[in-house]
Amino acid sequence: VIYLVLSVIWTVLYWAAGMSFFDAVIHTMTTLATGGFSSYDDSIGHFDNWRIDLIATLGMFVGGLPFILILKTIQGEKGVLFSDGQVRAYVSVVAVVILAGAAFLWLRNGVDPVLALRYASFNLISVMTGTGYATSDFYRWGSFAVPLFFFIMFIGGCAGSTTCGMKIFRFQVLYAAARTQIRHLFQPHGVFIPYYNRRPIPSDVIESVLSFFFVFILCFGLLAIGLGMLGLDYLTAISGAATAICNVGPGLGEIIGPAGNFSTLPDTAKWMLSA
Amino acid sequence: VIYLVLSVIWTVLYWAAGMSFFDAVIHTMTTLATGGFSSYDDSIGHFDNWRIDLIATLGMFVGGLPFILILKTIQGEKGVLFSDGQVRAYVSVVAVVILAGAAFLWLRNGVDPVLALRYASFNLISVMTGTGYATSDFYRWGSFAVPLFFFIMFIGGCAGSTTCGMKIFRFQVLYAAARTQIRHLFQPHGVFIPYYNRRPIPSDVIESVLSFFFVFILCFGLLAIGLGMLGLDYLTAISGAATAICNVGPGLGEIIGPAGNFSTLPDTAKWMLSA
Repeated sequence: VIYLVLSVIWTVLYWAAGMSFFDAVIHTMTTLATGGFSSYDDSIGHFDNWRIDLIATLGMFVGGLPFILILKTIQGEKGVLFSDGQVRAYVSVVAVVILAGAAFLWLRNGVDPVLALRYASFNLISVMTGTGYATSDFYRWGSFAVPLFFFIMFIGGCAGSTTCGMKIFRFQVLYAAARTQIRHLFQPHGVFIPYYNRRPIPSDVIESVLSFFFVFILCFGLLAIGLGMLGLDYLTAISGAATAICNVGPGLGEIIGPAGNFSTLPDTAKWMLSA
Repeated sequence: VIYLVLSVIWTVLYWAAGMSFFDAVIHTMTTLATGGFSSYDDSIGHFDNWRIDLIATLGMFVGGLPFILILKTIQGEKGVLFSDGQVRAYVSVVAVVILAGAAFLWLRNGVDPVLALRYASFNLISVMTGTGYATSDFYRWGSFAVPLFFFIMFIGGCAGSTTCGMKIFRFQVLYAAARTQIRHLFQPHGVFIPYYNRRPIPSDVIESVLSFFFVFILCFGLLAIGLGMLGLDYLTAISGAATAICNVGPGLGEIIGPAGNFSTLPDTAKWMLSA
């Protein structure tokens, strides 16, 4: 029901902002689902409308929130959303990434600060949540943007959201486990307990999350080597493997970047990416 | 004492293969230590001598073995070296990587098979053990080689060796832990115990190794983003971060690849890579 209500709201918003009713419906479907398909070749960039960009940005952000907490908020549990450890981390990561991206677009590339903020927030949230919309060929933003877009692909949104990637809570568990290990190195006889959302994390949860991380990175590495063996260039192989395994959409580079697509890749590469 | 004895043997071998005595001594020092400096700009490639290549390849391989097992072998415990789980995994990885590299050099690039095996074994062992010698500009071997060289940087040799990278035993622990987790997913009530060298791995060891892996990848990612922000291209930023954190030496690409060096990088990048 929440999903349907959000869909109706976003359809109306898109429509009011100037989309046709049909466009509003189908773009709502791929915004809240952080799916990212558009009926236009140049994605949301086709509309070149700051209100549509803003609505899509908010929609992708909402799609990255845990839906159970949206439900609880609607049921009247005030503050449950922004007191949650995972949501706080999600908001912090989004804020840092957008500010870094916008600052570089403004100070290095000389983009107008408001436009820089609009492009940075839209495209970075799109890649981080695994949506895959684009309003700008972010591969051409300059050298700083490429590793940034590459690594945020892996992050994703919150658990219980529609997003892709490894999800915020896993990074929180990984961080808590690593922090405990490092404190233990300094004080070998100390007792340190990793916490998540103010609760201690059981050992088997840590092992499970850490193993997930390892298998994820291993699959990514093997896929990238496999794509390289098919003759794809380094950037296409590495970012193609990342975008496939994180379910993002666009990769980086001339071929599979936001202005390109996967059609020219050899069939074997498509099978591997599909798998 | 073992280290000194090995050093004397390798100095004599290098000398007999045609190096001057001085060259033999200093190249022995950076072969067995898997350090990788050479007094020539074109590294071991300067000599262009298959016997020297072979001696260096064997030396780097021996540098990647656990020295305690070399000691036990000398003390008469026959078979202790090659019945060790870590050494077996090391030999297997080395064999697979060399065969894959040589096969591609031969079948794709049309290099003579013997020469392909010589180049592949030398340069891949050099990068995997973190030595950093080069006899060929392996960045130019073609697209397949770039992700292969990139990922083997992280592997390293055995624990208790002179090598860099994450070390073989950590990957074995990671694999055992991940395998246990996956089996547990299929049979949630089953009891599965991860083993290393036929002994069960305690939970705190698994957490420690997994945390190490996470912190390693995190540092690598942050370093790569930092280098990208300084204006380095993607391949230089990513492979520079990997080669610095794994203590290998050469990166990939036009600038810091095996035929280049780090001198043209901005000072800030040098500080970051040094740290």
